[in-house]
Formats: sequence, structure tokens, C-alpha cells
Amino acid sequence: MKIVVINRLLKDTHKEQIRKAAAKAGGSLLFAESEDDIPSDWQDCDIIYGFGVKNAKTNKNLKWFAAPSAGVDFLLKPGFFANEDCLVTNSSGAYGVTIAEHIIAVTLMMMRKLDYSYSESLKGNWTSPRPQKSLKDCRILVLGTGDIGCCFARRAKAFEPESITGVSRSGNCSDPAFDSVKKVSELDSLLPSADLLVMSLPDTPETRDILNRDRIALLPEGAYVVNVGRGSAIDEDALCGSLNSGKLGGAALDVFKTEPLPSDSKLWNTKNLLITPHVAGNLTLEHTLSVNVDMFCKNLINYAEGLPLDNLIDKTKGY
Amino acid sequence: MKIVVINRLLKDTHKEQIRKAAAKAGGSLLFAESEDDIPSDWQDCDIIYGFGVKNAKTNKNLKWFAAPSAGVDFLLKPGFFANEDCLVTNSSGAYGVTIAEHIIAVTLMMMRKLDYSYSESLKGNWTSPRPQKSLKDCRILVLGTGDIGCCFARRAKAFEPESITGVSRSGNCSDPAFDSVKKVSELDSLLPSADLLVMSLPDTPETRDILNRDRIALLPEGAYVVNVGRGSAIDEDALCGSLNSGKLGGAALDVFKTEPLPSDSKLWNTKNLLITPHVAGNLTLEHTLSVNVDMFCKNLINYAEGLPLDNLIDKTKGY
Repeated sequence: MKIVVINRLLKDTHKEQIRKAAAKAGGSLLFAESEDDIPSDWQDCDIIYGFGVKNAKTNKNLKWFAAPSAGVDFLLKPGFFANEDCLVTNSSGAYGVTIAEHIIAVTLMMMRKLDYSYSESLKGNWTSPRPQKSLKDCRILVLGTGDIGCCFARRAKAFEPESITGVSRSGNCSDPAFDSVKKVSELDSLLPSADLLVMSLPDTPETRDILNRDRIALLPEGAYVVNVGRGSAIDEDALCGSLNSGKLGGAALDVFKTEPLPSDSKLWNTKNLLITPHVAGNLTLEHTLSVNVDMFCKNLINYAEGLPLDNLIDKTKGY
Repeated sequence: MKIVVINRLLKDTHKEQIRKAAAKAGGSLLFAESEDDIPSDWQDCDIIYGFGVKNAKTNKNLKWFAAPSAGVDFLLKPGFFANEDCLVTNSSGAYGVTIAEHIIAVTLMMMRKLDYSYSESLKGNWTSPRPQKSLKDCRILVLGTGDIGCCFARRAKAFEPESITGVSRSGNCSDPAFDSVKKVSELDSLLPSADLLVMSLPDTPETRDILNRDRIALLPEGAYVVNVGRGSAIDEDALCGSLNSGKLGGAALDVFKTEPLPSDSKLWNTKNLLITPHVAGNLTLEHTLSVNVDMFCKNLINYAEGLPLDNLIDKTKGY
């Protein structure tokens, strides 16, 4: 069993941990800095942990693609894998902490007008206070109650919001950080009282453009929108309109329909739009990387022992 | 009893609340937009709630100056009041929520390199992720365990830090958000394990330059410093040196030795220094303003009934 691990950020401790797991699983192991570094005699590997997408398209022997990311939509297009039975797992569970911190950071930047005072400070300007909003007494709606939504809700709760309502497909989520969890079919009735809408959804047919023009119109005056899931979930044109008109208080987008965001995109010049370059969740935070490696090592043992894989993707659902 | 209230941000509901309290206290009431709007026949008022500093310097009849701010150092210079027996209260307790949100926001901006990615986004640049740090597993040291320090600690705790240690003059603080609270005499032994140092201290002889060159040198490599108390607490030259050398990970200053920060200050061009223009706590946040008004109204009844005033400043201590 050949295992290829592609990740230039791994530290020696991570590599040692993976070596031990691979030995226990009875596999041979190759570390590569990028997938262009995979030698020809490893191109028929059984397992890839990392972004080995070119190999996945050509290697008919590939049995398991362990994605270090939470989103795996780019792997699920029909015909993507040379071996159509290749298992796909994601690393959902590794990103909750870091993405929750991102959501809190950009929300407070917007509410406290730090985007304004900070950008002026870069020009050496000492500005006067502008009207501020707060997470205190805020009505928060969290669309997507997975690891990220739950980690965010637990942190947000400490800021004494009026309410934190979760929304998921099933309406089931037992995390006590949510005051209530509703089904996505109730979304339209929830939007009019969402001072802050946090979106953390995978890309699936059901989530595409879920925040469309009609739903943006249902948000209250001055509402904030944060998207850390996938850019496909928002009608960007409609969002820009509502920001430029001053209806929305602000939006913070870390993900976009096209990434990198094209240099001629009108989003760059949209009022009260805080753009970050898909940095909410990435492996440059040691905690995220360590959890990610832990999860792979545990799953590698599962795989070797014939046990069910954690985080196995249902390709028909998309997550 | 003449009561002058100076605050252009008050809403009708606040004014109505103050009117009721003044009536109950048996006083007559004037609202002014600024202290220049106080008519001559109100210059001999008994009570000022607001920044009526010119009146305080000339009005020998002034008996109580209710400052809407938490810091009152500017009122405590000997000879400041025409009536040297004038009581001074501050509004400590109104600012914890808003300043705690500021501390979390600027800390995460620095740790997550949002200052970089956001400032680049203003130029239309899509940047690559930079190494990130996290409040998760962070060792936090909070210098000053008053309302602000406690409100911050309660929020920070939700981010799963390794520890939150408070430091106060007495070493006494019962807020369970702190894992432990130490005396300021132990500060030097605590600094070497402070990944994040949060400073929320009043300006007193003991706090001036408390973070001096020697103490900055005690902080670990890559530490972050946030100051929301008074600029007098930090040796700014030494801090700049430690930031420019790369020893510190970053600093976020909302307060400075001289405010507004002079346009030729070298702080504007210091590496990894996030400057905000004294906006952490101000009355543009409705929650802060409402608590502030609540506190004054309660204290006005105390005053009228001869009860002790809340938040009475000990002019010899400075807080």
C-alpha cells in the first residue's frame, strides 16, 4: 500500500506521527512538497493525503483521496477521478477553531468600524469615532451548524448576544451554544430578524445562490453578512447592490464565485464590503494543521483495519 | 439644585430617563450639546454630567462632576477644580463590553494577519496566507482586572486559551474567567510566559511606564501587546524598538502618550503596530451610552438622598 502525503507545511513532528501511523497500517510512505514532486514509481499510489488532484485524474489505482480541506466540491464533479470508486474524505473538524476566530474578527471589524479607522491610520490619519454596533444583544443567524458553525456559536455566546439561531438541513444540532436550531425550509421567516447572518455551507445544488436577491431583501436594515463557506452560496450582484444602497450594514466575504477574485471585479469597490482572500481556514495555523494530521492518522488506521472512514463524503450529497 | 447634562449623543429616551431622575432628586435640569452652550445663569450649577471641564475650572459652586468616561486622570491635577471639594465620579462599568470587543477584534486582526490581507485588499490585491496565531492555547496576561479586564477575560475564555491570568494591585479579583489573579509585584515573573499582554490600567503614578524597556524585554519572542487603558503606561520608544526588531509579534494601541497622535510620530511607521484613534470605548455604541445614563440616574438619586456615590474617585489614588 503506497501512501503519498503532499503538504509543504508539515513539521518534523507531524511527519513522525504520519510515519508511525503508516507503519502501523503496513503502508509505505512518500512525502512530497507538491504533486509535481511525485516520482513516476509513486504515481500508482493507493492513498493521497493532500491536494494531489492531477494524480487523482490519471491514477486508476487510487483508492482513497484524503483532502486536507473541509470543502471538497472541486473533487466531486462526475468523471473527476480516474477510479470512479475512489473514496473521498474531507477534514471537517479541523477548521472550526480558526474559521470561528475569523468570523468574530471580521464581524467586530465591521461593527466597530475598525475597517475605517484602521485604513485611515495607514495614511497617518487620526479619525473621529463613528457609530458602532455590538455583538452584545445582537440577533445572530448561523446558516450551517457543522463544526464551523458550532465553534463560532460557542465563541459568540460569550459576547452576550440576544439570540443565536442555527439553521441546518435537518434542523438537528444539539450544541447548547445555539438557542434554537431550525430547518432550512424556515429560512425566509428567520431572515427578517437576523442582525448578523453567518454562512458556513458546503457547495451543493441546494446551497447555490441560497442567499439570493429576494432573501437579501428580507434582511433587516443595517444587517451584516459573513460568508466563510463557499462563494457559490451568494448572489454577488444582489449583495453588492444592497451594500452600495446602504441597506446592509456590511458584509465580509472570504470566499467568492471566482477565486482569486478577478482584478476587474466590482466587489473590490463595493461599499462596506470587507474582502479577505480565502484565509479564514488554512493550514498556516499550527492548531489546524495538527488536528488535520491527527484526523488523517486515525483514519489511516481505520482504513488498514477495514473500519468505516471518518468524514467519508457522500458524493451524491456533496458533503 | 441645578444639573447640567452635556452630551450630544443622548436620544430622547435617555433624556426622558434623566428628566425623571432629576425630578425625583428635586433638581432643575439643562441639556447642552456642548459646554459652550451653557447659558450664564446655569454657570453656577451644582452638578455636571458630561465633559464640562471649563465650568469645573471656574464654578466655585460645583459639587459633583459626573464624568461619562472611565479614565478621569485629566480631572485630578491639583487645582483643577475651582471648588477643590468637588466630588468626582467616573463611569467605570459602562465600557467593559465595548472595550472587550475592541481587544478581541484587534488581537485577532494581528494574530490572523488580517491587518495585512485587509490592507492589501484595499489595493485590490489577492494575497497568499501568512502564518497565523490563535487565541486557542494562548497564554493571556491581563494587566488590570476591573470591568474592562473582566469583560475581556469572559469573552476570551470562550476561545479556549491555555490560561488567563489577571494582575491587579491587590491580587484580588473573584471573576471566574481568570484562572488566577496575581499581585502587580509579581509582574516580572509573569511576563516571560505572556503570549498576549492586555493592558487596561488607569493613569496613576504607579502605572506610568509600567511596561518599560526591561519589562518588554521579558516578554517571549512573538508576543502581542494590546493597550486600551492609558498611553502613559507604556514606554513607546522601547515598544517601537521591539516591534521593528521583530521581537514582538505585534502591538495594538488605542491610547498614546500624546493624543491625537502627532502626524510626525514614528509610531505611524512602526512595523506590526496597529494604531486605532482612541475608539475602543466611546459613547457611539448604544449599549455603552444606555448603561452610562443608567449609572448617572441611579447616582443622582443616591446624591439627593445623601447616600454614598457609586464610582466615587479617590483623588489621592487616581481611580
